Amino acid sequence: MLKIVKNNKKARTGVLNLGGFEVQTPFFMPIATKGAVKNISIEDLQSLGAQIVLGNTYHLWLRPGDELIKQAGGLAEFMNWNGPILTDSGGFQVFSLGARAGKNFGKNGVKLIEEGVEFSDPLDGKKYFMSPEKSIEIQLNLGSNVVMVLDECPPFPCSHDYARKSMELTLRWAARCQKYFQQKAPEGSKRPLLFAIVQGGVYEDLRKECARRLVEMNFDGYAIGGVAVGEPRKHLYEILDWVVDELPQDKPRYLMGLGKPEEIAAAVEAGIDMFDCVIPTREGRHGRLFVWNEENPTMTKILADKNFYQTINIVNKKFEKDFSPIDLNCDCEACQNYSKAYLHHLLKIKEPLFLRLASIHNLNFYLKLMRVLRES
Amino acid sequence: MLKIVKNNKKARTGVLNLGGFEVQTPFFMPIATKGAVKNISIEDLQSLGAQIVLGNTYHLWLRPGDELIKQAGGLAEFMNWNGPILTDSGGFQVFSLGARAGKNFGKNGVKLIEEGVEFSDPLDGKKYFMSPEKSIEIQLNLGSNVVMVLDECPPFPCSHDYARKSMELTLRWAARCQKYFQQKAPEGSKRPLLFAIVQGGVYEDLRKECARRLVEMNFDGYAIGGVAVGEPRKHLYEILDWVVDELPQDKPRYLMGLGKPEEIAAAVEAGIDMFDCVIPTREGRHGRLFVWNEENPTMTKILADKNFYQTINIVNKKFEKDFSPIDLNCDCEACQNYSKAYLHHLLKIKEPLFLRLASIHNLNFYLKLMRVLRES
Repeated sequence: MLKIVKNNKKARTGVLNLGGFEVQTPFFMPIATKGAVKNISIEDLQSLGAQIVLGNTYHLWLRPGDELIKQAGGLAEFMNWNGPILTDSGGFQVFSLGARAGKNFGKNGVKLIEEGVEFSDPLDGKKYFMSPEKSIEIQLNLGSNVVMVLDECPPFPCSHDYARKSMELTLRWAARCQKYFQQKAPEGSKRPLLFAIVQGGVYEDLRKECARRLVEMNFDGYAIGGVAVGEPRKHLYEILDWVVDELPQDKPRYLMGLGKPEEIAAAVEAGIDMFDCVIPTREGRHGRLFVWNEENPTMTKILADKNFYQTINIVNKKFEKDFSPIDLNCDCEACQNYSKAYLHHLLKIKEPLFLRLASIHNLNFYLKLMRVLRES
Repeated sequence: MLKIVKNNKKARTGVLNLGGFEVQTPFFMPIATKGAVKNISIEDLQSLGAQIVLGNTYHLWLRPGDELIKQAGGLAEFMNWNGPILTDSGGFQVFSLGARAGKNFGKNGVKLIEEGVEFSDPLDGKKYFMSPEKSIEIQLNLGSNVVMVLDECPPFPCSHDYARKSMELTLRWAARCQKYFQQKAPEGSKRPLLFAIVQGGVYEDLRKECARRLVEMNFDGYAIGGVAVGEPRKHLYEILDWVVDELPQDKPRYLMGLGKPEEIAAAVEAGIDMFDCVIPTREGRHGRLFVWNEENPTMTKILADKNFYQTINIVNKKFEKDFSPIDLNCDCEACQNYSKAYLHHLLKIKEPLFLRLASIHNLNFYLKLMRVLRES
């Protein structure tokens, strides 16, 4: 499924065919939560060289609805994106709403039972029921090229006992998703990939068992979930070590929801192929911009010195009269056209153009990081 | 100064040289109040074919300050705009703050006296004093290509007596602006134009007298002010009739702050060359989008039938599943890339990308309107 072009110890580069598009791995997916990458147009995404975007099943189900998007010809067509799409399953949003296995309550009246998750739309109170089958149905309606199984994401900290119960539920739901997917997904070239999600908290035995049992079920790819839920970062690298060795070489590996540039570099070194994260756009909107310290970065340099970049806060008084660009070596629209002083001014007056330029700059940083990691 | 290319009764097309840029008249200026056209980048403005933008002296004086912009090389350089700039004088903002001649109070502690206007920054309470000389000094610091005199804008309704007193003040301020400008403005090719502003309320005698006396003082161009202050629209066409006949043929004429498409067309017919208005961007941000009813519009058609366009409200339920573009004949980014259903969705979820696309679409409508008026 994943054509590996080059290996370097655990790290690898390759090509993944998604819905007719050849995607170079490892890659980073900008997040189009509600069918748009916040403040960013399709032309921006194309100029940035983004290869694939991520849509959120939970948000799109509520608004504008998966049936409407199906009528539009799928999410890519709806948002005019000429490329592949990965959709999450809604599991993480259910987690955010406070749903926990064995506890039939949470925020917004959320209720998690064996069958699935009941919750209310925070905006209008309308009731929804998300089952593993429903999640797949929605994702197929969205025309996703990479469909994720519905999982339960345990919080941090959580006991071994809870993590096991949660993992067993995730495994049962993965089986239901797979069964439904096999019945309903289109065949042939239009068939999307179905990815399972490895859970198990910070417990080595559970993570390995979960990975092994999912691999036995033979999915198209494997994600590592439950790693951006507030746990200390040292656990991340342990979990990567435990899980990656259990996964097959020829299937893509996706680290969900991470991370900082140095974490992404370390995860690529550990054998991960796919990433998504709100950091570049969210940090950008708050004025925190990534700047390369290395003029000619390589993977070796990046792994050797985690100061390969810095984050500047453009609102800082010292940029008020700094008429140079954010990053002299950056080819993004913000750096090519505007000075730090101008961007500082735009942020101070709350001009929305700032949000777009900052998002573009930080996404460009992340996409360049991925290119550097691929090329080294 | 204005090279007239073609006349049609009172209407005319021409070329105006502004800071080395040849600008085709009649033209519309997008408004970059605080040094940016809200939600719109410089690349957007260039793609739209905007010829000139307007900056607001009052706002830029307060933030980031005219001295900083001077250091940046002027407003065009600061915002990376490769074209000419017109700056207003701050007079209209002073009017908005509630300053009135002969009444030493208003909103935010504003005080209007012979010497000028004292006011406080609404954000931090810092005191400012705007005199005619100060307004010109700021505009020269901003590197403006068309500098406007400081005027007093009478409210509507106002008595003949008040309108006369106000007009006399405007004339005295115009003389002070001219004197200061002659002393301080750069010479040669870098010399900006200085425009006077015709006031006089809705009174024929005052409007004509004001125009005549300003023409005697020999400015580079003449603006008509005080016409977007809540007066019934019939007065607009009267005022245009009264004033335009008093103005010299070879000087540009600028109708400040107007208007709707049919008003702009009528004003071009009446002999106006320059426009600025918040309508396209502000209406766009609220979901109201302009759509041509004429596939091949001409000035004759536009003047004959004011239904040459319509305004749709994209938030309307009927667009929820309308997968066609806003306007099939529009070449803007919004119409080329997205459906009404998608834009409806973006507005409903309050996605900032909507604000940009709606502003681009409506500006494109206005700029096409000006092209049609120029070419017919």
